[in-house]
Amino acid sequence: MELMIPLDGQSTVPMYEQIYLHIKQEIRQGNLKAKSRLPSTRTLAEHLKVSRSTTQLAYEQLLSEGYIESVPCKGYFVSAIDALVEVQDHPSGLFVALEPGEEEGIQVDFSPRGIDLNSFPYNTWRKISKNILVDDNKALFLNGDPQGEYALREAIRSYLHSARGVCCSADQIIVGAGNEYLLMLLSLVLGPDKVIAMENPTYKQAYRVFESQGYQVLPVNMDKSGLDVGMLDRKKSEKALADKKGEPDFIYVMPSHQYPMGIVMPIKRRQELLAWACEKEGRYLIEDDYDSEFRYKGKPVPALQGMDRNGRVIYIGTFSRSIAPAIRVGFLVLPKNLMAEYKRKAGFFASTVSRIDQNILYQFLTEGHYERHLNRMRSVYKAKHDCLMGELKGLEQAFWIAGEHAGIHLLLTHKEGISEEVLIARAKESGVRVYGLSRYVIHPENNQYPSTVILGYANLTEAMIKEGCRRLKAAWN
Amino acid sequence: MELMIPLDGQSTVPMYEQIYLHIKQEIRQGNLKAKSRLPSTRTLAEHLKVSRSTTQLAYEQLLSEGYIESVPCKGYFVSAIDALVEVQDHPSGLFVALEPGEEEGIQVDFSPRGIDLNSFPYNTWRKISKNILVDDNKALFLNGDPQGEYALREAIRSYLHSARGVCCSADQIIVGAGNEYLLMLLSLVLGPDKVIAMENPTYKQAYRVFESQGYQVLPVNMDKSGLDVGMLDRKKSEKALADKKGEPDFIYVMPSHQYPMGIVMPIKRRQELLAWACEKEGRYLIEDDYDSEFRYKGKPVPALQGMDRNGRVIYIGTFSRSIAPAIRVGFLVLPKNLMAEYKRKAGFFASTVSRIDQNILYQFLTEGHYERHLNRMRSVYKAKHDCLMGELKGLEQAFWIAGEHAGIHLLLTHKEGISEEVLIARAKESGVRVYGLSRYVIHPENNQYPSTVILGYANLTEAMIKEGCRRLKAAWN
Repeated sequence: MELMIPLDGQSTVPMYEQIYLHIKQEIRQGNLKAKSRLPSTRTLAEHLKVSRSTTQLAYEQLLSEGYIESVPCKGYFVSAIDALVEVQDHPSGLFVALEPGEEEGIQVDFSPRGIDLNSFPYNTWRKISKNILVDDNKALFLNGDPQGEYALREAIRSYLHSARGVCCSADQIIVGAGNEYLLMLLSLVLGPDKVIAMENPTYKQAYRVFESQGYQVLPVNMDKSGLDVGMLDRKKSEKALADKKGEPDFIYVMPSHQYPMGIVMPIKRRQELLAWACEKEGRYLIEDDYDSEFRYKGKPVPALQGMDRNGRVIYIGTFSRSIAPAIRVGFLVLPKNLMAEYKRKAGFFASTVSRIDQNILYQFLTEGHYERHLNRMRSVYKAKHDCLMGELKGLEQAFWIAGEHAGIHLLLTHKEGISEEVLIARAKESGVRVYGLSRYVIHPENNQYPSTVILGYANLTEAMIKEGCRRLKAAWN
Repeated sequence: MELMIPLDGQSTVPMYEQIYLHIKQEIRQGNLKAKSRLPSTRTLAEHLKVSRSTTQLAYEQLLSEGYIESVPCKGYFVSAIDALVEVQDHPSGLFVALEPGEEEGIQVDFSPRGIDLNSFPYNTWRKISKNILVDDNKALFLNGDPQGEYALREAIRSYLHSARGVCCSADQIIVGAGNEYLLMLLSLVLGPDKVIAMENPTYKQAYRVFESQGYQVLPVNMDKSGLDVGMLDRKKSEKALADKKGEPDFIYVMPSHQYPMGIVMPIKRRQELLAWACEKEGRYLIEDDYDSEFRYKGKPVPALQGMDRNGRVIYIGTFSRSIAPAIRVGFLVLPKNLMAEYKRKAGFFASTVSRIDQNILYQFLTEGHYERHLNRMRSVYKAKHDCLMGELKGLEQAFWIAGEHAGIHLLLTHKEGISEEVLIARAKESGVRVYGLSRYVIHPENNQYPSTVILGYANLTEAMIKEGCRRLKAAWN
């Protein structure tokens, strides 16, 4: 079977996506019948004059969505409709941010999880990868240091010191594959049966990890300066708090730019947090500095860790937002006094990041590419931020707008209290997806925040932002 | 400063290692003084006409061993001796297998952890990597499926089915970065406060993970067929067993080739294990099939998982041994009845392997490279195995030799009972490192096994094996 797929080399839609969309449509429209055999990825690639990985990516996506099946040693076949219905239940997770129109009828998706990959320095990344593999570097294929390669940790230390004011040595840094993994490792170091206070709303993935590790999580509501430390002592944070085991051992905070509220914690509140941590042995603050790189107004706010003189702050950072989610590299900075515990309780966990990837990242950092990339992204995101702020002008009578000047999303709180559900539903009817604040709230049934929706803008073009805002205004006014 | 480093392009010692060794020697001999500045990696690379990543790897190793220090924005400097002593305490983990002579005086290191990287298809790996990055494959830089890319899981499924007789669908496979991570994920799925029986001696890393997750571990001694299921019911496995919480919920076994004992579990014992698992709700067998690829005699033994008709076997495998440790890719195969639990309790853990690496591995598997590589490695390891068996001839009067025909190590048990410590010490005096069985024993203070040492041969040349055996005979006879 030969597939005639019209490819547009000038399109912004990547080749593999054009192939994927075409075959999907052919199957949906019944032009490709169930059980019919597709050409191999190699044949199709030769036929279309594209590389094989392009056709493989397209097939991979079709496989994961259940449109086609792979039969070992035989090839790829169009799925029967039954099979299709069954497998569509599986969340494929692919294209989450790339394909805003994936859900029927959605034209503009203000996803707060997206990042802009159009400005990613693919050439540089490719060149570094190639050079690393060109050498007869056998050692790269062996197991490395459980904490991550020393040179990479040193490069991270140097960056954190100059950009974030973090004070540490490379010995205190642990490199790992993603936040969930690192938080799991951290909870091994901190020990079982602990109580942790978290800002509410918060980064739900962190909440899920702590829950999965058997921690009791105390959600603490915020005022305009962020988490109110006084609430903890007076046990007012949530009425549930008084009934529970008691006071927290740790507080998980995002002082540089709270997710999702966008609050930058003022210095006084930070000092209160540090004082709280020093009051009792064994108390720690876990500072998640997930997107501090993006700030468009005023001076960058140094990390809480840099203010700490008593080894009470555990710092966690990631390259998922500043480089790309698939890089799968984040890092923990432990206070010196926790290093012995780390080595004893979790030091046997081999590093989850391959030495090859560590080496690529190391060169990306030390050769200045990271800094250049961040500068570029700051201006890309600032332009999108400014565009969105401008386009939201007509909505100011009905909404309070918050979270500007930093990060890659904004919050819109309705002044009259039209519910989140109604705002989301009306937006959806107009082909726009926005996200309710309540999805970030721990125990959303107790959500005390006024009706708020979140608009992420990182992976939208300015044209899409404009179109999205036009539709939102029509839907909400 | 210019460094004159004599490089030997014909040597089997890689370039970066020659550079590393030369500088280390210069520092040790005092030719390079503390605080003196080294050339930048770029300058040195240009000077020596090697690629920059070669000099970077050399410096990285020197950094991690504390011979040099990096001062941000200034460069690399020779460390003072004080600093050197301090940082040498850190286990760098580098070159564990590559550099047998690292410890003073050791000429031949029969490490059971080593693998042979001389036969690794670097060119193929490089070519695949290059092709994947050549395309404008933005999607690869986004987050993927938490279980791993569907196409890769399908490729693993197909391999497991044909090579190991494992029956599963791609939906039951979870790809993750390394065994420790996957076992941690598994213990989240299985729930807290469980009792797990493990073969004793065993793979200590797995033991450490289960302990770290709060599991009670019951070490069970083995007979010549492996773990004796009867021992569990009669609570005879170890006197500690009777005092403890009771019977196990799970059994962790390596039926294809027990590590480190090298026992291949006979069919009858396997059936007993499966019957044990079916006796009670919630019982599972965890089958670690870590090096089943290497078998030199007789038919390959299919996995226990393939015999299971009741969804009681959890299968775990890895590419660390069959490809390379640094690949950091392993996988779990869960029974269907555990998938809902997985999704509920651990499905939010994002994949720890980057999509780029998953794609490289996918192509390595599906384009036939893996099969060819395994065939090549089987013959490489068989030749080393046969060489070692031949060279051990003179030791047969004093030792029983076990664990042959499979895997990449042998066991030597002393017939007269000269202690492990003495055997190891005498070998060391002769410049040979061998490994005591007791390091794999849970609660080594209760070690009931006769004096046994382990000889791994994967990363030794035949000449080194011969030299090592010559020395061992002189030391032990």
